[in-house]
Amino acid sequence: MRAKVRILKVKTGGFTIFINPKDAQEWKIHPNDLIRIESGKRSVYGSAAISDFVGVGEVGLSEDILESHQFSEGEVVALSPAGTPESVRYIKKKMRGEKLRKVEIETIVKDIVDRKLRNTEISAFVTALEINGLDMDEIAALTIAMAETGDMLDIDRKPIMDVHSIGGVPGNKTNVIVVPIVAAAGLTIPKTSSRAITSAAGTADVVEVLTNVTLSLDEIKRIVEKIGACLVWGGALNLAPADDLTIHVERRLSLDPRGLMLASIMSKKYAIGSQYILIDIPTGKGVKVETMEEARSLAKDFIELGKRLGQYVEVAITYGGQPIGHTIGPALEAKEALETLMTGKGPGSLVEKAIGLAGILLEMGGVAPKGMGRKVAREILESGKAYQKMREIIEEQGGNPDIKPEDIPIGDKTYTIHAQSSGYVTAIDNKAITAIAREAGAPEDKGAGIMLHVKVGEKVKEGDPLFTIHAESEGKLDKAIVLARRLEPIKIEGMVLQVVGNL
Amino acid sequence: MRAKVRILKVKTGGFTIFINPKDAQEWKIHPNDLIRIESGKRSVYGSAAISDFVGVGEVGLSEDILESHQFSEGEVVALSPAGTPESVRYIKKKMRGEKLRKVEIETIVKDIVDRKLRNTEISAFVTALEINGLDMDEIAALTIAMAETGDMLDIDRKPIMDVHSIGGVPGNKTNVIVVPIVAAAGLTIPKTSSRAITSAAGTADVVEVLTNVTLSLDEIKRIVEKIGACLVWGGALNLAPADDLTIHVERRLSLDPRGLMLASIMSKKYAIGSQYILIDIPTGKGVKVETMEEARSLAKDFIELGKRLGQYVEVAITYGGQPIGHTIGPALEAKEALETLMTGKGPGSLVEKAIGLAGILLEMGGVAPKGMGRKVAREILESGKAYQKMREIIEEQGGNPDIKPEDIPIGDKTYTIHAQSSGYVTAIDNKAITAIAREAGAPEDKGAGIMLHVKVGEKVKEGDPLFTIHAESEGKLDKAIVLARRLEPIKIEGMVLQVVGNL
Repeated sequence: MRAKVRILKVKTGGFTIFINPKDAQEWKIHPNDLIRIESGKRSVYGSAAISDFVGVGEVGLSEDILESHQFSEGEVVALSPAGTPESVRYIKKKMRGEKLRKVEIETIVKDIVDRKLRNTEISAFVTALEINGLDMDEIAALTIAMAETGDMLDIDRKPIMDVHSIGGVPGNKTNVIVVPIVAAAGLTIPKTSSRAITSAAGTADVVEVLTNVTLSLDEIKRIVEKIGACLVWGGALNLAPADDLTIHVERRLSLDPRGLMLASIMSKKYAIGSQYILIDIPTGKGVKVETMEEARSLAKDFIELGKRLGQYVEVAITYGGQPIGHTIGPALEAKEALETLMTGKGPGSLVEKAIGLAGILLEMGGVAPKGMGRKVAREILESGKAYQKMREIIEEQGGNPDIKPEDIPIGDKTYTIHAQSSGYVTAIDNKAITAIAREAGAPEDKGAGIMLHVKVGEKVKEGDPLFTIHAESEGKLDKAIVLARRLEPIKIEGMVLQVVGNL
Repeated sequence: MRAKVRILKVKTGGFTIFINPKDAQEWKIHPNDLIRIESGKRSVYGSAAISDFVGVGEVGLSEDILESHQFSEGEVVALSPAGTPESVRYIKKKMRGEKLRKVEIETIVKDIVDRKLRNTEISAFVTALEINGLDMDEIAALTIAMAETGDMLDIDRKPIMDVHSIGGVPGNKTNVIVVPIVAAAGLTIPKTSSRAITSAAGTADVVEVLTNVTLSLDEIKRIVEKIGACLVWGGALNLAPADDLTIHVERRLSLDPRGLMLASIMSKKYAIGSQYILIDIPTGKGVKVETMEEARSLAKDFIELGKRLGQYVEVAITYGGQPIGHTIGPALEAKEALETLMTGKGPGSLVEKAIGLAGILLEMGGVAPKGMGRKVAREILESGKAYQKMREIIEEQGGNPDIKPEDIPIGDKTYTIHAQSSGYVTAIDNKAITAIAREAGAPEDKGAGIMLHVKVGEKVKEGDPLFTIHAESEGKLDKAIVLARRLEPIKIEGMVLQVVGNL
């Protein structure tokens, strides 16, 4: 069947192709059937919706399709029903617990990217992986297939360094400091980051307060070849697109099978050509990886996978038992990171982690002698060279390099929670802090978040301020206060934990 | 948020709720998010689509929703984002290989029916069942939950008999003959059937050639209480609606986990109150159950499940190695069944299977002495009493009881395939026969199908007609001929299978 394209002003979150009821009847197409449209060398698969929104002989495309596929209003395309994709057989093979061959994994990934597999089939794949797992051969094949079905970056400077923190610890603006230190030392580090999904701020959300983070691959190549670094939002790029489609399903099932997690992270690194990669695994209560044992096992897998991909990987298991630094939320974190870069000083947990990670990268990249990376990193930070590099990054990405911490607007609706007793801070609950910051509006409201006045181990007196909630609206502030009172995220205990009487 | 309902002329195959981009932004609703609308005691869940199709303050409902939920144009409803359904936790429990409790299974089924779980989650459930299975406690709980979340039939005549054939054998119009025999003997048998999904004709498709099969539960109750039987399409009823939603996903993955298959069949029997159930398992090459061992194991499960549900189940393992009777396709099968009922005679494979199954039911229902069922069934068929009962069924369901076999229109575009050598028919390929009949237009084109002139074991001479393809259009006939020549569904071999020379 030949049909004329109409672009419909609708987003369904999938690829939806609208067909008139008369055409659907003639072509025996039912709602939600997989169909294919084709024009010259371009083709796309989508789910049928049957509707009067389009006339007979017309085919309506949802805007989702236009984001990645070029079809234009009035263009004539061929439309046909599509059968069951071949890769469903391989998904079933994994259900039976069998090992998948490289070409089978490639077919699954290609069918995901081509939208031949929809959420229903991707969900079966994710579930089969959750139950039956993947071995390292399969994970390597999956990683490469995910990278190669998307865009790849080829930067004309070597070696390419990279750093990645496994999510989960609030306030983790560390890499906003690590990247300029590493680039200031002369290394190349094209850093892509994600936005917050379940957290209060992703690195991309934080950097966006300072400069533009939505760049094309060509712009990234130009900038990184010029100044050695960037800090951009990976989601704007077509890096490992199968990963985004898979993650959407994983999130709905709150699943994160290890093989997919490894492939997800490493495919993006592979796609931008990273050769020396530092993985930061924050470990502690209330973050993704809670025990040292789990962190070590995951570290081993990252290193092994790196070997298969021709990448040199080191892993830093870091303390993730409480937030990093004092701020949580995009603007608050951007402010803290910028202050730290400008003055070379900042909260101990932030500065020590940043120079620790940067130091490892400097040694990996051969610009600091073994055992001296941390020292060199500290010098670069304290000398203002890292700040200078950050100014270049801000400027090249389209922001104002003269931005000052006090220029950054912070939510002006505030409320401070005070200590109800004297004692020591024994715990700060990561999950509760994140929940309160989100309730206050983060990450969408960039000025929303939390300023911590105390950290674990500090002594407080009754009535001392513990933390301040920032919001952009009174309504959200009120909701965050209610949640803060309920969750009590900061725990204070006297030094005397228990008195035992006469036995 | 309160919004005014608009009914949109669109079918997406799911429950889709359209929201204006401005409202979506304000309410932080993204495409494909799960949302809930509510008005008084009615509520429904659906997937968000963001579109200008509706104005600010309006909510557009896809027609799919209106099929089962009453909302009217202009009605004011409350709209809210919905979180992750509780039952996702239980699906994950099954992924871990744990046994589900009754209440957990009930929650999953309820969430499927309420559309809180969409294809993505149902697919995870189906995949987890495929891999980790269900034990009989779980299957029984699933069966009852599926039945009780839909409509139930309460017929004021006891005992209620039922018969069900596991799909797969072409030409299986047997139950069109079994049901009137059983009812003519005074028993009650409210038979619901399905339409063809992957076959060339389901029982509902066949009966629809003779009379209306789309009836309400009230009409079924009235008819069955009056004449003791019906032959209707189960898909028109709201029996075990979770099953239909699950089957849609199973079909896309071409999966059919045993626990779900048992629950699927038995939940519909439970919902219409069947007490004595005969399960027919055709066994042979190219049907669902290929080996006797598998058939016996499945039979044991049906019987055990029946016990848990308070139903008495017997199982007939029948020969399914070739098509039943001589015809395949709705009109051709209806004609053959009607001729058999009118004359009391027909192809041996059809008559013997029909009176065999009917005989078992007569004994189960206590209207034939043990061992005499088959004989009594044959008498009822040959005496014309079964035909008389079929006339009542046709008339009560709204058809013309005087319909004659020669009144039934058969596809008049025909082509006959002839034997290319002499010998014996050693095999008729079920899957090939079905594929050719479907290529000719069955089941949508009711007159399309295949007439077999030979069956397995018969002697043929070169040039003898083997089978005739019937179609309603030349185009489809041509395509069916091409497929028939490629597949060669009827195998002829000389009696001498191999000559071994001097060893």
